[in-house]
Amino acid sequence: MSSSAAYKGLTDRYRRVALLGEAAAVLHWDWAAMMPDGGAARRTEQLAELELLIHEIMTDPALEGDLDEAATADLGAWERVNLAEMRRRWTHANAVPAKLVTALAKSAAQCEMVWREAREDNNFDAFADAFAPVLALVREKAAALGAVLGCSPYEGLIDQYDPGAREHEIDALFAELQTFLPEHLEQVLARQSNQPALPTQVLALSEERQAILAQSIMAGVGFEFSHGRLDTSHHPFCGGVSDDVRITTRYDAADLSTGLMGGLHETGHALYERGLPAVWRGQPVGDACGMAVHESQSLLFEMQACRGRAFFRHLAPKIRSALDVAHSVSAYSAEALHRRAIQVAPGLIRVDADEVTYPFHIFLRYEMEKALIAGNLAIADLPDAWRDGMQKHLGLVPETHRDGVLQDIHWPVGSIGYFPSYTIGAVMAAQLFAAIREVEPDLSSQLEAGDFSSILAWLRANIHGLGSRYSRADLTRQATGRPLSADAFKSHLKRRYLD
Amino acid sequence: MSSSAAYKGLTDRYRRVALLGEAAAVLHWDWAAMMPDGGAARRTEQLAELELLIHEIMTDPALEGDLDEAATADLGAWERVNLAEMRRRWTHANAVPAKLVTALAKSAAQCEMVWREAREDNNFDAFADAFAPVLALVREKAAALGAVLGCSPYEGLIDQYDPGAREHEIDALFAELQTFLPEHLEQVLARQSNQPALPTQVLALSEERQAILAQSIMAGVGFEFSHGRLDTSHHPFCGGVSDDVRITTRYDAADLSTGLMGGLHETGHALYERGLPAVWRGQPVGDACGMAVHESQSLLFEMQACRGRAFFRHLAPKIRSALDVAHSVSAYSAEALHRRAIQVAPGLIRVDADEVTYPFHIFLRYEMEKALIAGNLAIADLPDAWRDGMQKHLGLVPETHRDGVLQDIHWPVGSIGYFPSYTIGAVMAAQLFAAIREVEPDLSSQLEAGDFSSILAWLRANIHGLGSRYSRADLTRQATGRPLSADAFKSHLKRRYLD
Repeated sequence: MSSSAAYKGLTDRYRRVALLGEAAAVLHWDWAAMMPDGGAARRTEQLAELELLIHEIMTDPALEGDLDEAATADLGAWERVNLAEMRRRWTHANAVPAKLVTALAKSAAQCEMVWREAREDNNFDAFADAFAPVLALVREKAAALGAVLGCSPYEGLIDQYDPGAREHEIDALFAELQTFLPEHLEQVLARQSNQPALPTQVLALSEERQAILAQSIMAGVGFEFSHGRLDTSHHPFCGGVSDDVRITTRYDAADLSTGLMGGLHETGHALYERGLPAVWRGQPVGDACGMAVHESQSLLFEMQACRGRAFFRHLAPKIRSALDVAHSVSAYSAEALHRRAIQVAPGLIRVDADEVTYPFHIFLRYEMEKALIAGNLAIADLPDAWRDGMQKHLGLVPETHRDGVLQDIHWPVGSIGYFPSYTIGAVMAAQLFAAIREVEPDLSSQLEAGDFSSILAWLRANIHGLGSRYSRADLTRQATGRPLSADAFKSHLKRRYLD
Repeated sequence: MSSSAAYKGLTDRYRRVALLGEAAAVLHWDWAAMMPDGGAARRTEQLAELELLIHEIMTDPALEGDLDEAATADLGAWERVNLAEMRRRWTHANAVPAKLVTALAKSAAQCEMVWREAREDNNFDAFADAFAPVLALVREKAAALGAVLGCSPYEGLIDQYDPGAREHEIDALFAELQTFLPEHLEQVLARQSNQPALPTQVLALSEERQAILAQSIMAGVGFEFSHGRLDTSHHPFCGGVSDDVRITTRYDAADLSTGLMGGLHETGHALYERGLPAVWRGQPVGDACGMAVHESQSLLFEMQACRGRAFFRHLAPKIRSALDVAHSVSAYSAEALHRRAIQVAPGLIRVDADEVTYPFHIFLRYEMEKALIAGNLAIADLPDAWRDGMQKHLGLVPETHRDGVLQDIHWPVGSIGYFPSYTIGAVMAAQLFAAIREVEPDLSSQLEAGDFSSILAWLRANIHGLGSRYSRADLTRQATGRPLSADAFKSHLKRRYLD
């Protein structure tokens, strides 16, 4: 076979893998948003079968020879990166035996079902039993990944979500944030406690009408409902595929910002997926550049663009109109709504956290994940470790497992190594948004007018349209002119909360 | 390999095929009930990929040897039928080249999208262009199937939906019905025109509240909402998988029976799927015994059990309560509601047809399908042939393509050969229900009490739990003591409409 035929053959294989992965993505969305409980057992088997098929394609012995052969082909720049990304995925897939893949998929699906009930019932022991095989298999996988990638087992796991990320980078970034944030948080809380009390909001809006409001605002930001849906799920997420993005959010009848900001967060994810280079659809280089970059996109919309004062001037009349209240009611002025949306308060639940305290939730999980994978933390000791960690980071102790170690879906489904991406994403979002602000000096007036076209155009050119063409580090450097650092994030937090 | 190892290997393969088919079934449901239009192109590729994978497994050259080898194994009765059914499917799959499978899947998906708009716009020419490749590929497939099965090309297509069905059986059954029905229809219409006018129904109910009513009635009949969903789609259907049955219906604000009876029809399908032998799940012998039997189950519930006077006595108070009308309002008495539900009127639309005129719609499609596959009817001539056929069978001529040849989804998606199953199913439903009545003399009082337990127990024992253990012909003979005939159906129509 010629080297270009080898490359062509590889693109066919990876296209099949992509299509099977997309089928699985729709089944996952359905599981979370639509499926009755009785469907779980069989759905687990369906997903395990798809995963196994992908694994079979990826571990076909012929693949290594094709990758070697294609390396000598005359390829363009995108194709060369595509080939490199193919090899990276091949390395990941071949590090892990098929049996382990299947066993992990099944035990994770079972553990997810147990976890849902266990969280409801505050039953740590039930969870612990179901989590034991998941953790054992993830640790096995971590060891295998670390060995082939030449990194630590935990880094092997992170690499699945944020390619190339290593502990020393994360440690340094988190250390800098841990130097800055505690004092910053104190100052913010002191300042907020000196402000006049927020006027009470008394109006509620039905879930249906909140969904209509959220859809209209999402559409204004750029979400295409001909290529996606907004539904409800307990854990908001962005799923589906690039041409049919499935967003979920959840609503609080008394607090419209829960559903709205959740929807705008997921809209950031969705716009990234929609903006990926269509010509590379189904090829590794056409995929999103990992989950940290993905989180940067959701947080750029939710936290940077949409939680600012300017956008709330755009939002306030729409909220008042949905609630049918007069312009003059102070609780629903742009200023009051904005102040409420940037209230900072240490709390027990990560997904409810504001952007100042959120990183502390990540620090805790990062420390605990590392210890779990290293074998320095037993499942039975998780509740105590959680309480100690929450006490250390936020000065709070959960009274229930539900508000503690059972709150997140990530560990039950075996997604260990994902959490750092949230805070790396927050930091990257601030740096990207600062770069946009540099080239768009009147960004605030654009946001006040609800005009996201400049932001979207910049992101299309500098992030979305580049897929996995560059590493996260290079992408950041090219887009912003400097390597990723906490500077923009710190400046943002100071400006928003202390100015 | 030993013969029992060969059999074991086959069960593994067919299990994989089943799981991939189930994944596709959920994606199909999503397409019809959830997917935004922009997702269609990529979904088409995902479904084509799954179909291709199934085809690859089914056409693996090793399979034939395994089938031969396993035939010498020491197998139980169910296993022997399972093996025979494996061979039947293998024969179907290997008759058709992979290229044809993929091309048909894609052109059918494209044609479906075009058809949706073409029907809306009453644009036959747009449909005709998209249908041309579908028909060409289906004819190619029919020729291939007919050759290996030793039957006519059209029979090769029918065999996919109603295994073993042949034209002479259908011709004979339809001929008998065509002798009986025209005169019967005349008598029914004459009788109905002599009855006092039905009291006008003036109340409407929102779609949401109709759905709640439908769900409560479906649950009473036996639908388990922990193993299924009820949603809305333009074309009601029963999809999903046995443990997670996805039913859709559609609602008419002014006529509750549309949504209710649609839901009860699909409930019959769902109960069949749920009652298939769990121990054989994923094996060919554990699947439903073809689509004619499937239709017998939906029609047994919708037409035999639920459209009778007895069940309307159970239903009427629930409808009045949902509408909040008094017991005394004559338009909503059990008698009036029942009379309305069994009104007979020749019409243009198959899915709106009553059970007396429905077979005429099938006769028309059966004749036209045969001609299309035989090459005796060109696509350009479809509208004229439709008008002529409707004139001949029901004395009506559609003024639009929308009410004529563009009304059904079957041909656009390449499902030619399916239509006879509807009427075979109606005939079988009557025969099964008559058999249940023989062993349950107080069936009417059970239905009046909304008690379906005896019906369900009988069906579980005689139909559902037997999967594909017996052919449709044997299943009918064993369950009812006689071969399938039109007798019970004719008696039913006389009793319901002329007594």
